[in-house]
Amino acid sequence: MSLNPTVDSLLATADAGIDADRARLAEGFARVRARTLALAEPLSPEDQCVQSMPDASPTKWHLAHTSWFFETVVLMPHQPGYEAFEPRWQTLFNSYYESLGPRHPRPQRGLLTRPLLASVHRYRAHVEAAVDHLVARCDDATWAAVQPLVELGVQHEEQHQELILTDILHALSCNPLLPAYEASEPPAASGAAGTPPLHWITGPAGPVRVGHTGEGFAFDNESPRHTVWLQPYRIADRLVTCGEYAEFIADGGYRRASLWLSDGWAAVQSQQWHAPLYWIAPDDPRAALPQWQVYGLHGVKPLDPHAPVTQLSFYEAAAFAEWAGARLPTEAEWEAAYALPGLRQMTGHAWQWTRSAYDPYPGFRPWAGTVAEYNGKFMVGQMVLRGSSLATPPGHARSSYRNFFPPAARWQFSGLRLARDGAC
Amino acid sequence: MSLNPTVDSLLATADAGIDADRARLAEGFARVRARTLALAEPLSPEDQCVQSMPDASPTKWHLAHTSWFFETVVLMPHQPGYEAFEPRWQTLFNSYYESLGPRHPRPQRGLLTRPLLASVHRYRAHVEAAVDHLVARCDDATWAAVQPLVELGVQHEEQHQELILTDILHALSCNPLLPAYEASEPPAASGAAGTPPLHWITGPAGPVRVGHTGEGFAFDNESPRHTVWLQPYRIADRLVTCGEYAEFIADGGYRRASLWLSDGWAAVQSQQWHAPLYWIAPDDPRAALPQWQVYGLHGVKPLDPHAPVTQLSFYEAAAFAEWAGARLPTEAEWEAAYALPGLRQMTGHAWQWTRSAYDPYPGFRPWAGTVAEYNGKFMVGQMVLRGSSLATPPGHARSSYRNFFPPAARWQFSGLRLARDGAC
Amino acid sequence: MSLNPTVDSLLATADAGIDADRARLAEGFARVRARTLALAEPLSPEDQCVQSMPDASPTKWHLAHTSWFFETVVLMPHQPGYEAFEPRWQTLFNSYYESLGPRHPRPQRGLLTRPLLASVHRYRAHVEAAVDHLVARCDDATWAAVQPLVELGVQHEEQHQELILTDILHALSCNPLLPAYEASEPPAASGAAGTPPLHWITGPAGPVRVGHTGEGFAFDNESPRHTVWLQPYRIADRLVTCGEYAEFIADGGYRRASLWLSDGWAAVQSQQWHAPLYWIAPDDPRAALPQWQVYGLHGVKPLDPHAPVTQLSFYEAAAFAEWAGARLPTEAEWEAAYALPGLRQMTGHAWQWTRSAYDPYPGFRPWAGTVAEYNGKFMVGQMVLRGSSLATPPGHARSSYRNFFPPAARWQFSGLRLARDGAC
Amino acid sequence: MSLNPTVDSLLATADAGIDADRARLAEGFARVRARTLALAEPLSPEDQCVQSMPDASPTKWHLAHTSWFFETVVLMPHQPGYEAFEPRWQTLFNSYYESLGPRHPRPQRGLLTRPLLASVHRYRAHVEAAVDHLVARCDDATWAAVQPLVELGVQHEEQHQELILTDILHALSCNPLLPAYEASEPPAASGAAGTPPLHWITGPAGPVRVGHTGEGFAFDNESPRHTVWLQPYRIADRLVTCGEYAEFIADGGYRRASLWLSDGWAAVQSQQWHAPLYWIAPDDPRAALPQWQVYGLHGVKPLDPHAPVTQLSFYEAAAFAEWAGARLPTEAEWEAAYALPGLRQMTGHAWQWTRSAYDPYPGFRPWAGTVAEYNGKFMVGQMVLRGSSLATPPGHARSSYRNFFPPAARWQFSGLRLARDGAC
Repeated sequence: MSLNPTVDSLLATADAGIDADRARLAEGFARVRARTLALAEPLSPEDQCVQSMPDASPTKWHLAHTSWFFETVVLMPHQPGYEAFEPRWQTLFNSYYESLGPRHPRPQRGLLTRPLLASVHRYRAHVEAAVDHLVARCDDATWAAVQPLVELGVQHEEQHQELILTDILHALSCNPLLPAYEASEPPAASGAAGTPPLHWITGPAGPVRVGHTGEGFAFDNESPRHTVWLQPYRIADRLVTCGEYAEFIADGGYRRASLWLSDGWAAVQSQQWHAPLYWIAPDDPRAALPQWQVYGLHGVKPLDPHAPVTQLSFYEAAAFAEWAGARLPTEAEWEAAYALPGLRQMTGHAWQWTRSAYDPYPGFRPWAGTVAEYNGKFMVGQMVLRGSSLATPPGHARSSYRNFFPPAARWQFSGLRLARDGAC
Repeated sequence: MSLNPTVDSLLATADAGIDADRARLAEGFARVRARTLALAEPLSPEDQCVQSMPDASPTKWHLAHTSWFFETVVLMPHQPGYEAFEPRWQTLFNSYYESLGPRHPRPQRGLLTRPLLASVHRYRAHVEAAVDHLVARCDDATWAAVQPLVELGVQHEEQHQELILTDILHALSCNPLLPAYEASEPPAASGAAGTPPLHWITGPAGPVRVGHTGEGFAFDNESPRHTVWLQPYRIADRLVTCGEYAEFIADGGYRRASLWLSDGWAAVQSQQWHAPLYWIAPDDPRAALPQWQVYGLHGVKPLDPHAPVTQLSFYEAAAFAEWAGARLPTEAEWEAAYALPGLRQMTGHAWQWTRSAYDPYPGFRPWAGTVAEYNGKFMVGQMVLRGSSLATPPGHARSSYRNFFPPAARWQFSGLRLARDGAC
Repeated sequence: MSLNPTVDSLLATADAGIDADRARLAEGFARVRARTLALAEPLSPEDQCVQSMPDASPTKWHLAHTSWFFETVVLMPHQPGYEAFEPRWQTLFNSYYESLGPRHPRPQRGLLTRPLLASVHRYRAHVEAAVDHLVARCDDATWAAVQPLVELGVQHEEQHQELILTDILHALSCNPLLPAYEASEPPAASGAAGTPPLHWITGPAGPVRVGHTGEGFAFDNESPRHTVWLQPYRIADRLVTCGEYAEFIADGGYRRASLWLSDGWAAVQSQQWHAPLYWIAPDDPRAALPQWQVYGLHGVKPLDPHAPVTQLSFYEAAAFAEWAGARLPTEAEWEAAYALPGLRQMTGHAWQWTRSAYDPYPGFRPWAGTVAEYNGKFMVGQMVLRGSSLATPPGHARSSYRNFFPPAARWQFSGLRLARDGAC
Repeated sequence: MSLNPTVDSLLATADAGIDADRARLAEGFARVRARTLALAEPLSPEDQCVQSMPDASPTKWHLAHTSWFFETVVLMPHQPGYEAFEPRWQTLFNSYYESLGPRHPRPQRGLLTRPLLASVHRYRAHVEAAVDHLVARCDDATWAAVQPLVELGVQHEEQHQELILTDILHALSCNPLLPAYEASEPPAASGAAGTPPLHWITGPAGPVRVGHTGEGFAFDNESPRHTVWLQPYRIADRLVTCGEYAEFIADGGYRRASLWLSDGWAAVQSQQWHAPLYWIAPDDPRAALPQWQVYGLHGVKPLDPHAPVTQLSFYEAAAFAEWAGARLPTEAEWEAAYALPGLRQMTGHAWQWTRSAYDPYPGFRPWAGTVAEYNGKFMVGQMVLRGSSLATPPGHARSSYRNFFPPAARWQFSGLRLARDGAC
C-alpha cells in the first residue's frame, strides 16, 4: 500500500522513465513524515505537550517544527504563491534561526497548549501536500534548488525523531509513576550469551583521511574531508556495559574526586549524581525491588549487565575510562577505526562520547542561505559523540557523522567505548 | 433532573422526614462537584495539564486534588474498609499537608501527564460514590464527625474552582496566541451609564466587633469574633476602575519611585511592570489595535474604562492609592463598613487588597486534626484581601472572609477600593 | 576633657545663658560621632571594608553613610555655600533614598576599597566641623529647621552603630577562623544564680493607648498615638534562654514541620537550619569542644544556658513559642505591658520578635521632605521587634520604638519573650 | 645588592664549584618571591582583601596561596620536621587540590579579612626561609626530588603574578571611581608610527611537530611533543588593534547575530555586552570625555587605536574574525608559525584566543603525586590562548605554552590574531 496519492502518481510517472530522483525523494519524504507520526502515536495529547526542561521540547513542538522547517526553507522561497499555514506559527515553531525572525522562548515551549494537537496534524498534512506538489511539478531549475533542501528537511526530521524519543523519555521519567512510553516488551537486547570479553583493536597510525567522502548526504560539519595525523592507539571492540559501569559505582566511582574532570566533579556534587540518569538504586523509594533497575522506553526493568550503559554525561564517561585505566577515543581515532574487522556496536546501540571537543574541521564553511545556522554556530562548549543509538532512525548516521552535546548532557542514549595509547 | 441516584434516594428518604441535613449536604456536594467539571469543560487535555508557574496548578491537578481531599480527610479516616483509589496518588495530589506524608514538588505538577485526564475523571466518580454512600449510610456518631469535614471539602473545592480559572488564565496568557478560555461574549459588565462619581462613606469609629458571627460555615482564620478599635475613617462606595488606573499610568505611575513601597518599586524595576498583568499596551506587538486592551477569560478586549481594575499586586494597589491621595482600608475597616448603605461592589467583582498583613486574630487556634494546616501556617508574609471576585463561586464568600496572597501576586482578580483617614 | 573645641566654646556661651539647646545638641552630636569611631577601632582596614551579604554593609560604608546623611540632609540644604566633600560620594554612600539621586548597588558596597579608610575619616571630620559650625552660628530661623534634622542624624547614626556590630559579626562569622571582634572577656551576663523560673504577668485588656506620647524624640513610624483594643493576655517576665532553646532543639524542634509556619519550614529545609545562626554544634568541625558553643563579639564561648537566646529568625521564635505551648506577644501587647511591675529584660538584652507584621499605625504620615523615605516605604513584608539588644546604644530605644526585619533575618541580636491568651 | 643572606652564602659556595644549580634556583626563587610583593605594593590592605567575582581572587589570597603551594608541595613532604606555619591555613589557601583536603569555598575568599596582611607577610617570610634552607642543605637524593618541585613553585607563582594584576584590575573596575592600580604614566605602547598594514604570512602545511621540545621547564599540558597535520593556511603578522575593533563596533558588530556563535550571542544579550570589558562608551556617565576611553592599570585613558585590543572573550574574538572575513588560528597553526620571519607581537602584548578547545595532547599524562591536578582536570569546556600578555612575567611563557580560559572570560589581557585558510 502506498503512502499517499501524490507519491503514487509520481512513482507511476517515474516508471515511465521521467524522473526517478523526484520519485525517490518523494517516497523518502513520505516515509519519514509517517514515521514521525508513528513515534507520537503511543502518547496522549498531554504527553505530547509537556516540556520537562529547557533542553527538551514537547512532541507536539517537534511535529510542528519539522513542518515549519519545510515550510520556511523549501516552500516559502520556492513555491510561488505559497502562504504560511498560519503566519503566527512562524514565530512559535522557529527553533534557533536568528535570521528567520523572532522566536518563542525555548524554555516556554511546554506552555503552548494551543495550537491543539489536531491543528498541528492539519499543519503537517498541509505542508506535506505542498511539498509533494512542488516536488512533482516544479521546473528543473527549481528542482535543482529544492532537491537538496528537501533532502536536508528529511534528515532534519530524522534528527528530531530521535529527540522525540529522548525528550519524552525525560518528561516521563520526571513522573513518580514512571510510565512506559511503550508497554510492549522488546526482544532481549543482549541475549543469553552474556558479555563477551573486551578485545583491543589497533587503529591506523600516521596520516589518515577523515570527514565526508562526498557520496550521499552529509551535514556541513562533516566536511571538508582532510588529513589528520594519529599516534598509535587501540580501541575496544565493544561498548562498556551496564555491568561494568555498576562495578565502577560499587568501587566508589562517584565518590573519588581523582577520577573526575574538575567540572565533572562539581556536577557530581551539585547535582548529586550517583548513577546514570535513569538508573534506580536499590534503596530508591520508587524501586519495587532491592536491586538496581533501569528506566527506559519500556518502563522499569531490572538492570541488564550485558547491555551497553547509556544516559551518561561526558564527565561520567571520562571518569569511567580513567577508572578503567583507559581513555575515550578521539573522534578521528573512532572514524579511522570504523571499518576495521572485529569492531562491534559502532552504530545502533549508543552514541559514544569521544575525547574531542566540537571544533570546526579545517576549511569548514557553513552552508549558504537560511540553513547557514544549522551546525556551525554551535561549535563551542560541546563534545563530539560518534556512532548512533537505538533511538536513531535506521540509516540516518554514517561513519563521518558528528553528533554533539554539552558535556553535562545526560538525557540521550549516550555511552562509551574505551581506547588506549599505543598499538596492541 | 437530579444530579445522581444516591442523592435521589437520599432526598426521597429525606422527604420521609429522616435526615434533611444529610440530603442538603449531599445535594451541595453533588452540585459543587459537577460545577468543577463544568469549569474544566472548555479546556483540552493539554490545557488541563499545563502549569505556567510554581504558584499556579494544572486544571487536572485541581480536579484530582479536590478528590484527594475528600478521600484523605473524609473517607480514609471515617469509611471502614475504604481503600485509596490508587495509593501512589496520595503523594501526587497532596498540596501542602506535611502531616499527611510526602508530596510531589509543587513546581513539577505540570509534568504529570499521567494519570490521564480520563483516569482523573474516574477518580472523581469513585470518590463521589464513596462520599455519597458514607453520607447516606453512616451512623449518627460518624455523621457528627463527617458532616463538618464534608462541608469543609465543599468549601475547599469552591476555593479551587476560583483557582482553576485564575491558573488557566495565567497559562493561556503565556501563549502568544492569547487564546480565550471561553469564546462566547459575556454580557457587558459595566453598562452604558459609565463610571459613577466616587462617594465617600463614613465607617464606624471606636470599638467594633469583627470576625465570624458563628452562623453558617466559616474558615478557622475568621475566628474568634473580637473587638477592635477603629479611628474615624471613610471608605469609597465603589472600586477603582480601569479608566482611573489608566490615568495613573498616564501620569507616570510606574515611573515615580515616591509612590511606591520599597519592595514594590524593586518589583516594578526587576519585573519591568508597566501596567496590570493582563493589560496589553498600544505598542505591544500582540495588540491588534493601537489602544490599551485587556486579556481575560473571553480573550482580548478593548479596555473598558468603567470596569473595575483587576490583576493588580498589593504594591500596585498601594501605589495607586498613594497617587490618588488616599490609602487602602484595613481589613477591619472593610468588614465594619460592610453593611453600610450606599456601598457597592463589595463582592462579585474583584478581591480588594487591604492595608492589613495576614496576622492571626487574637485567640486564633487552628482546627484540630489533619486540617490543622489549612490556614494558620500561612500567617506570615501575606496581605489580606476582602470581598470576592467575578471568578468566586456564587455564595462562597461572606463579610468576614479573609483571602490572602503575597504582596507581589498579580494573577488573581484583585483590585482595590480607596479609604481615607477621618470621617466625611 | 571635652570632645572638641567648638563644643567647648558653645558650652561656654551656653553658660552665659544664650542657647543651652544648641549646646546640648552639639554635645550629643560629638558624643555619638566619637562613639561610632570607637566601635570601628578594633577592626583592621580589611575588616572595615568587607561585606558578607547584601543585607549587611561594611563598617567603612557605615562610617561614610552616616556622614553623607548629615551632609545631604542638614548641610547642603541649610548651610549656604556648603559644597559636598567629594561630589561622587553622593552616589556611593546613599543608602536607599530614591529622591536623592542614583545609588551604588547595595550588594556591591564591599567592592569599594576606595575611598581608603583614612579618606573616610577625613570626610567625617569635615562634616563634623561643618555641622558644629552650623549649629553654633546659624540664625534662629535656620536653627528651627536644622535642630530636628541634626537630632534625626544623631538617632540615625545610633541605628547604624548597632548595624556596625551586627554586620561585622556576620562577616567575621564567615571566616573559618572565627575571629573575635573584641578579645577581652565581658563580665558574665547571667550571673551564678542561674535562670529564674518564668512568671506570667497579666497585661491590660480592653482599650489601651499605644504609640509615641510626644515627649522627646521618636521616629515617624511610632505615631500617631492611638487606641487599640486588647483581649486578655499574659506575658512572660523574662526572655527565653539559650538553655530552653537547646531543649527545643533536643526535642526535634528543627525536624517537626507541625511547629513551623509554612515559610519557616521551607527556610529550615532549604537553608538547612538546625540551630540559631551562631551556634556551633558539638559535631561541627570548627568546635574545639564536644558541646554546644556560641560565636559572638568576643569569639567562641561555651553555650551559657542562662543567657537570652539571640540570632533567631521570626520563624524560629514562632516555632519555639508553638513548641512551648505559648505564642509571641503582639507589639501592642508588648507596649501596653511595658511598665508593669515584675517585667524584666525588656531592653538591653535582645530585640524581641512580636506576632505583628509591620503595618502603618492608623493615621500614619511619613515625615515631609528628603526624610520621607525613612520608614514608611518599608511597611510591608517585615515583622516588628520590640525592646533593644546588647548592641543597641544605651538610651537609643524606648517603649514605643518599632524595630523591623524580614521574618527570615537572623543576624541581629533577636530573641523572644513568650505570651499567652487569657489573664493569669 | 643580593636578595637575601642565604642566597649570598649559596652563591659563594657555588663559586667554590659545588652546586651552581642550587644557587640558580635559589636566586630565581628569591627573585620571583620579591616580585610578587612588589606587585602588591601599590595596593592598600582593603585592595588586597577584596574579591569582585568568584573567578577572581584577592591579592592577599594570592600572596598566601603561593606560599601554601611551597609549604604543601615542597616543605611538608621533603623537609623533615617542618610544621605548617598555621595548620588551619592549609584549608584557607588550598585552591583546588581535592587530594589535599578540604578547601575554603572559592567565592568566599574575599571574606577572609583575617589573617591580616601583615600575618600573610610573615607567612611568606617563614616559607621562604624554610625553602632557602632546604635548597641549601638537603642531601642529593632530596635535591633530586625537590628541584623540580621548587621550579614548579616558581612557575606557579609567576602564573599568580599575572592573576594578581588581572584580578585587582577587575576589582578596581567595579568601583565607580575607577581608581588606577598605578598612577604613573607608562611609555606609549604603540608609538607615533600608527598601525602598520596587516600582512599575511604563510604557515607550514603537512606534518609538523608541536609540543614541548624537552629543553627547560614546561607544564605537563605541553607534552608529549607530537605530529599534527596542517592544511595550508596563513596568519596575520600582528594583533588586531583597538582601532580595528572600534570599526567592528561601529559596523554593528554587537547587534548582528549572524557574526556570532550561538553561546556568544546569548552572552551578548544576557550580559548586555557592547564593547570589550573595560571600554567606556562616549555616553557612559563615568566618561569624562565624549569619546571611547579604556580603563586599565593606569586608570582611564583615551582609546589608543594602535594598541592591541584586549579584555575580549573568545566569543568576541571569533565574531570579530568572522566580521573581518577571516578566522582564528588553531593552536597548532599558531605554534607552527611561531618562529617564522615577519611575525610580530607573538608574546608580551596580549594572549591570543585560538580556535582550539583545550583537549589533551595525544599521550598526555598528568604529573604524578600531589601536582597531578595541576592541568589535566581542567581539559574540558575551555579554549586555548597562546602567546603572553603585558601582564605576564617576562620570560614566563614560551612557544609551546598553553593558556586556557572559558570562552566567556573577559577579564584577562586577551585579544586576537587573524588567520585564513590557504597559503598566500
